[in-house]
Amino acid sequence: MNEVKEITKRDVDFAKWYTDVVTKANLVDYSSVKGSMIITPYGYAIWENMQKVLDKMFKETGHENVQMPLFIPESLLNVEKDHVEGFAPEVAWVTYGGKEKLEERLCVRPTSEVLFCDYYKKIIKSYRDLPKLYNQWCTIVRWEKTTRPFLRSREILWQEGHTMHATKEEAIEETLRMLHVYEDFQRNYLAIPVIVGKKTEKEKFAGAEASYSLEAMMYDGVALQNGTSHYFGDGFAKAFGITYLNRENKLVTPFQTSWGVTTRMIGALIMVHGDDRGLVMPPNIAPIKVVIIPIGNSEEINDVAMEINNSLLENNISVKIDNSNKTPGFKFAEAEVKGYPVRIEIGKRDLEEGLVTLVRRDTLEKIRVKKEEVLDKITSLFSDIQSNLYDRAIKRRDSMIYVANNYQEFSDIALNKPGFIKANWCGDESCENKVKEDFNMKSRCLIEDEEVGEVCSICGKKAKYRLYFGKQY
Amino acid sequence: MNEVKEITKRDVDFAKWYTDVVTKANLVDYSSVKGSMIITPYGYAIWENMQKVLDKMFKETGHENVQMPLFIPESLLNVEKDHVEGFAPEVAWVTYGGKEKLEERLCVRPTSEVLFCDYYKKIIKSYRDLPKLYNQWCTIVRWEKTTRPFLRSREILWQEGHTMHATKEEAIEETLRMLHVYEDFQRNYLAIPVIVGKKTEKEKFAGAEASYSLEAMMYDGVALQNGTSHYFGDGFAKAFGITYLNRENKLVTPFQTSWGVTTRMIGALIMVHGDDRGLVMPPNIAPIKVVIIPIGNSEEINDVAMEINNSLLENNISVKIDNSNKTPGFKFAEAEVKGYPVRIEIGKRDLEEGLVTLVRRDTLEKIRVKKEEVLDKITSLFSDIQSNLYDRAIKRRDSMIYVANNYQEFSDIALNKPGFIKANWCGDESCENKVKEDFNMKSRCLIEDEEVGEVCSICGKKAKYRLYFGKQY
Repeated sequence: MNEVKEITKRDVDFAKWYTDVVTKANLVDYSSVKGSMIITPYGYAIWENMQKVLDKMFKETGHENVQMPLFIPESLLNVEKDHVEGFAPEVAWVTYGGKEKLEERLCVRPTSEVLFCDYYKKIIKSYRDLPKLYNQWCTIVRWEKTTRPFLRSREILWQEGHTMHATKEEAIEETLRMLHVYEDFQRNYLAIPVIVGKKTEKEKFAGAEASYSLEAMMYDGVALQNGTSHYFGDGFAKAFGITYLNRENKLVTPFQTSWGVTTRMIGALIMVHGDDRGLVMPPNIAPIKVVIIPIGNSEEINDVAMEINNSLLENNISVKIDNSNKTPGFKFAEAEVKGYPVRIEIGKRDLEEGLVTLVRRDTLEKIRVKKEEVLDKITSLFSDIQSNLYDRAIKRRDSMIYVANNYQEFSDIALNKPGFIKANWCGDESCENKVKEDFNMKSRCLIEDEEVGEVCSICGKKAKYRLYFGKQY
Repeated sequence: MNEVKEITKRDVDFAKWYTDVVTKANLVDYSSVKGSMIITPYGYAIWENMQKVLDKMFKETGHENVQMPLFIPESLLNVEKDHVEGFAPEVAWVTYGGKEKLEERLCVRPTSEVLFCDYYKKIIKSYRDLPKLYNQWCTIVRWEKTTRPFLRSREILWQEGHTMHATKEEAIEETLRMLHVYEDFQRNYLAIPVIVGKKTEKEKFAGAEASYSLEAMMYDGVALQNGTSHYFGDGFAKAFGITYLNRENKLVTPFQTSWGVTTRMIGALIMVHGDDRGLVMPPNIAPIKVVIIPIGNSEEINDVAMEINNSLLENNISVKIDNSNKTPGFKFAEAEVKGYPVRIEIGKRDLEEGLVTLVRRDTLEKIRVKKEEVLDKITSLFSDIQSNLYDRAIKRRDSMIYVANNYQEFSDIALNKPGFIKANWCGDESCENKVKEDFNMKSRCLIEDEEVGEVCSICGKKAKYRLYFGKQY
């Protein structure tokens, strides 16, 4: 277990650093099933914490959980044309049940719009049945060729909300409400600043009328789309023939949304906050917030360790004592690679003065405090660490956003500076294609709150929008 | 929504009664995906409560959650011979990823022993790595021909624990520990009495050395196997070549267990406690424990409703006020079909005396109490209802267990009396086969704590075991 020392330097090879952290912190392991990973206990505990917080937020905004089928018959996937074109190339097909060939192929759900529509068609008859606000936590499958832990995988753990509304306005409101639930969660729990905005036509979800995304910037300047919320209009509803009797007793079509986030957020946590020593967990989402490391093995040391442990537990602070027979140095390194927000070192010399040492994971600062004051100090440290991580992330991100007024500037930035580029855009897909070809960058999302320049930074024609570009995971 | 009235009588047609309750209480809905059901919000909320309690019990007994792949390559499924024979006929096969035919077929996991073994082979090297105590919550697939909500389905929501131990003794201890965790859960939360015991060779899990099950008796006398815990010995470990260095630095093979329960427990809840009015939820597992039904619509009524609602919420009692504009009679019927443990009726006449009426779902008894005493009374009612449900279930069950000393007696009971039959058994599989052929009954589990009679109740040869028989879901 000396692997904790063997993390590639973040600035030397970011991709290798990422893989090192993921495996050395023991978040995942590789399975012998190609394209699928094993989420190991520490990684899964992070996901459980994310689920717990988000599920509460969903319920507080009126949503209920359901469980839809895992399989989609081919004919059902085919109902909405854009949707099937978007997903058919990347689904897994079940063709046999036991020894019998199936009459119709079933795909393993890549997302569940069509299943929800099929169900909504059955249960929505009257305006009294609206809105329907359902969510499900499940696994989806997309047949990716290249995979990376948490970022791109054949199996994805996620949640997908699917809602139906009487009016267009209500559906748009829901789309934005859930976008902002995600934004709040990522800011306040993950300490990750996100840019939220509308996707271009080219980049929107297959079948959606409008897609909104949360764009986070990783340490290396590359974007991670960290959640999406879609407004469907009545496109799916029409394709599925979903109608209801409104208050005026007229048969009309409802309006729909869907929204989802995945274990990809764990990837974002790593790449936004991690450093050369490993993971750095924000206290608000950390499965283990404090590790206590006894230095030496006297009765007094063990008593104090247990006392502090219990006082933290009583205050609902998740804590563990590392009593293994490894060296203190090894234990420090392990606490660092796992990113526990605070470690408490309890040693003889400190105790002679009635002190213990707290070490912040974010700054590695050491703070000696009276042992009676640990609980108070820890609580204020959590809040300091949480906001420091957010501030540090937003500062780094903002320092890597550039403005390009013409294609020469665009090109200079794209070739030399990692990060996002703000550009003016004529609205023409060919400009997005050009940027993709030249620099392997995609549009991230529209910028609504800034003035649009005169001309398109790509083609020089009249600009209509302001838009973020960036490379992506 | 007048469907709440249309429940088939339980004693007239139990199967139809079951389906009526499941759909009228809105626990599931049928999907257009053959063999798969939709678990709707109320049904899913019951499962979430089960998960919450069990997950805590698993963690308290030292287990950690992980997530393994959804797919199993055919070659991996084939490693353990008994296991593949048991499961291959009932798995769903993925043969295409997008447009490409896969080189090797993948089955959707019907259970994950082989995936865990494949992983354990990689991570277990030394006695220091043991025990490994992992669990996962997930969906599995078994290609059933006929399906019934919660009882038999192509997709099953469940948890599966998979553990590895240094010694045989430890593994057996774990097998029994988890069997008893399940037993406690079913008794104390679901109010379902279960018979726990060892399966015969014929009925044990494919690949196990010993299987233990929890056998619950439904209202109609038919058994529901409501959870299993398996001891694998070192069979799988040997097939997979899993070895570790023990304290004496010798390479040896570890010992294994697995254990699981599913949404089938919801089926058991229905069929043990339900009645002609619908579901009857034990308070300890009910997602909604109390429904408040205002009768009439005065300010005073609404104030009292809100007051009681808030005082219950403050005490962490899940409650809802039915403010819909349906008639009180309709609301009562709906509260009954959903099985809320207690309903509170708040009406003008009661209020004039400072009273409200509580109605127990289990007995339908009406209790008038001072409105200030609702909280105290509710709390004691919950405990009364919980134990009454358990007592009622165990009484009914015990009245339907019969003893057969010879095949004439066995036959008389099997043909005339629903329930379980206690028999003496020579240990020969042919006797189990005979009972299966003659009466469509299988052995449930061995009875360890009763004296074995002289001769086998089936063939008349010398008896070695005492055994439960029963029809099953």
